[in-house]
Amino acid sequence: RVDGKRLWDSLMEMAQIGATEKGGVCRLALTELDGQGRDLFVRWCEEAGCSITVDGIGNIFARRPGRNAALDPIVTGSHLDSQPTGGKFDGTYGVLAGLEVIRTLNDVGYETEAPIEVAVWTNEEGSRFAPATFGSGAFVGDFDLAACLETQDVDGKTVREELERIGYRGPEPVGQHPIGAYFEAHIEQGPILEAEGKTIGVVTGGQGQRWYEVTVTGQEAHAGPTPMARRRNALVGAARMVELVNRIGFDFQPDACATVGMLLNRPNSRNVIPGQVWFTVDLRHPEEERLARMGTALREGCREIAAAAQLELEIEEIWTLPPMPFDAACVDAVERGATAAGYPYRRMVSGAGHDALYVSKVAPTGMIFVPCEDGISHNEIENATPADLEAGCNVLLAAMLERADA
Amino acid sequence: RVDGKRLWDSLMEMAQIGATEKGGVCRLALTELDGQGRDLFVRWCEEAGCSITVDGIGNIFARRPGRNAALDPIVTGSHLDSQPTGGKFDGTYGVLAGLEVIRTLNDVGYETEAPIEVAVWTNEEGSRFAPATFGSGAFVGDFDLAACLETQDVDGKTVREELERIGYRGPEPVGQHPIGAYFEAHIEQGPILEAEGKTIGVVTGGQGQRWYEVTVTGQEAHAGPTPMARRRNALVGAARMVELVNRIGFDFQPDACATVGMLLNRPNSRNVIPGQVWFTVDLRHPEEERLARMGTALREGCREIAAAAQLELEIEEIWTLPPMPFDAACVDAVERGATAAGYPYRRMVSGAGHDALYVSKVAPTGMIFVPCEDGISHNEIENATPADLEAGCNVLLAAMLERADA
Ligand SMILES: NC(=O)NCCC(=O)O
Ligand SMILES: NC(=O)NCCC(=O)O
Repeated sequence: RVDGKRLWDSLMEMAQIGATEKGGVCRLALTELDGQGRDLFVRWCEEAGCSITVDGIGNIFARRPGRNAALDPIVTGSHLDSQPTGGKFDGTYGVLAGLEVIRTLNDVGYETEAPIEVAVWTNEEGSRFAPATFGSGAFVGDFDLAACLETQDVDGKTVREELERIGYRGPEPVGQHPIGAYFEAHIEQGPILEAEGKTIGVVTGGQGQRWYEVTVTGQEAHAGPTPMARRRNALVGAARMVELVNRIGFDFQPDACATVGMLLNRPNSRNVIPGQVWFTVDLRHPEEERLARMGTALREGCREIAAAAQLELEIEEIWTLPPMPFDAACVDAVERGATAAGYPYRRMVSGAGHDALYVSKVAPTGMIFVPCEDGISHNEIENATPADLEAGCNVLLAAMLERADA
Repeated sequence: RVDGKRLWDSLMEMAQIGATEKGGVCRLALTELDGQGRDLFVRWCEEAGCSITVDGIGNIFARRPGRNAALDPIVTGSHLDSQPTGGKFDGTYGVLAGLEVIRTLNDVGYETEAPIEVAVWTNEEGSRFAPATFGSGAFVGDFDLAACLETQDVDGKTVREELERIGYRGPEPVGQHPIGAYFEAHIEQGPILEAEGKTIGVVTGGQGQRWYEVTVTGQEAHAGPTPMARRRNALVGAARMVELVNRIGFDFQPDACATVGMLLNRPNSRNVIPGQVWFTVDLRHPEEERLARMGTALREGCREIAAAAQLELEIEEIWTLPPMPFDAACVDAVERGATAAGYPYRRMVSGAGHDALYVSKVAPTGMIFVPCEDGISHNEIENATPADLEAGCNVLLAAMLERADA
């Protein structure tokens, strides 16, 4: 059994790095603060006797040797980057739960057959560099590595520059790291476990996701002397599209989600009719066919709105992640871990994207969810209880040991 | 008669300062570039034999002496600051038309009875520091000077700091500068003169204006696992309010304008349901009573939208400018100038706010409009013909001489 207090203390110490006034964390991918978070993790792992490998996209692997060095390691992990107004647990929990597994094995001097590793995946959040789950997507070859390295943030800084600046552009070729099986612990980020009084979510897979970038172009003009009838107001068009996206989310219930998360208005001056608006769309559904229909509804709806308002329109689908079922044996291993410890649990599909979804393309994979308060994440008030976090970590330990000693 | 080519050349030289790739100007109030524009104007005025006074809010007065130093000067002018994606003529034309009047009088050695002055008013555009017509508003005492000096841009820099940095926090007490009469030449910034084939707009006054700041607060949450029905999406609420503002503009036709020009979405991350949106509203109408009703429609409509979507709402009216008729004698002087020169003209109300509207509170005032291409301004493609600009300057010369020698 893991040491819940030690896990909690490590979470609180990591949360100091990028701590916000409202009790959250702002530790955007590949910033100075992300570098500090990584450094702390690496130091803790080295103190726990692990060896460290970093690959060319900044993914970190901390290894605790097993009896049989020829076996592929059983890997766990998650990410240390956060949203701009993120919480203390999203990602960090999965990383530090992995560290706690290693510390627990050290405490009792337990030697596993296969090595045990903890991975930190680069830029999982996708808020500084799009899309999300960048490090794991590149790892499994779904994202082109060269393109990933040249991806820019809004200030034009590239992933390559920023990796080099914080010292995490490692020598290991991306995707060459062996993985025998992968487990990831994470807060649920939704309201289901809490509502049903369950401690553990046995995750059976992830829903599909499509990300878009939309540009609406009208004509800038003076807000005073330009008659309403002559206007080509890009923001009015974009506002109708925000409403459309929201309606698509409701139209494809149950299970659909549709969100405009980011919106930039230009030139953004009080007395200028907006000439151009750029915004992002995030569509999700557990079924591929419904998700595709949501995408069609988005394109057709935006086209109609733009045409009616004499606006130009560009829509680009920049990322798509199909619904992804996990390995049945890994899912069962997680369930057995929950049953053995006597934790109430349920099977569920993940609403969020996770590195585990990409890793599942190259290795048998499972995930463990624990409840978070009010189902809120991507918010500074994100919260989870020490007891639930400890429970998830115990299930992680059990599942990893089952595979490592198999 | 003025020298149209010299006026045009000066306009083109000034347009180099802050020139944008698309042929426009970005010379935001009190930036380094605004300082350079002011320096060039001051140098030109000194070369034309003028003395310079600067007041405590950075308004500049360049004086050409008259025969009778006891008479209050006849003043013209406008502003040198621009929108972020502004044009070459908005404001600058009025300032350099004034300079051209002085150069023309110098050419022929004409001595007026009253002194002639050209004023440059600080921060007319209101895009870096709100509200607009800042320098003239403070000059006539409508804005509190101390509050003006502490007004911050989005980066937290104050008007006071920025005035000092560019060297335009002058010693003259604000509002103490005498003005016998005031005329301002400006591009129309609307489509009427061009549509009717008129060269000169004889401006009879300005429409009323109300500016608001609206904050909509919901709850940030993850765009993936947060069910649609549980969301409190601030951007969806704001989008409905953008639509509402646009509808108010149409509902109060003829003559109403209603615009959301600036909008900031938070935290502005692709996979986060927006938690807070801040935006501005600009309402205009030539009749005070209709304008007030537009304001009521805004408040009530926003309140309904917020309540229905479980969002919190704050609306603040940050500025109001009532409809403002100009001095009948000054309007007539402008009309006589147009008639005498044989330019086709019409009387009209200004859709834009201008420094002249504030100055009209302390001195008899008139304005001269010239057409601009497609009625477009607050846009880098803003354009006007050398012939129309020369015509407006000739009318300005005639009107100023009529008052200066009266
Ligand atoms: N776990 C998590 O918040 N991932 C971010 C990627 C996404 O689902 O949008
Ligand atoms: N002339 C001009 O563009 N003024 C800006 C103030 C306004 O918004 O009307």
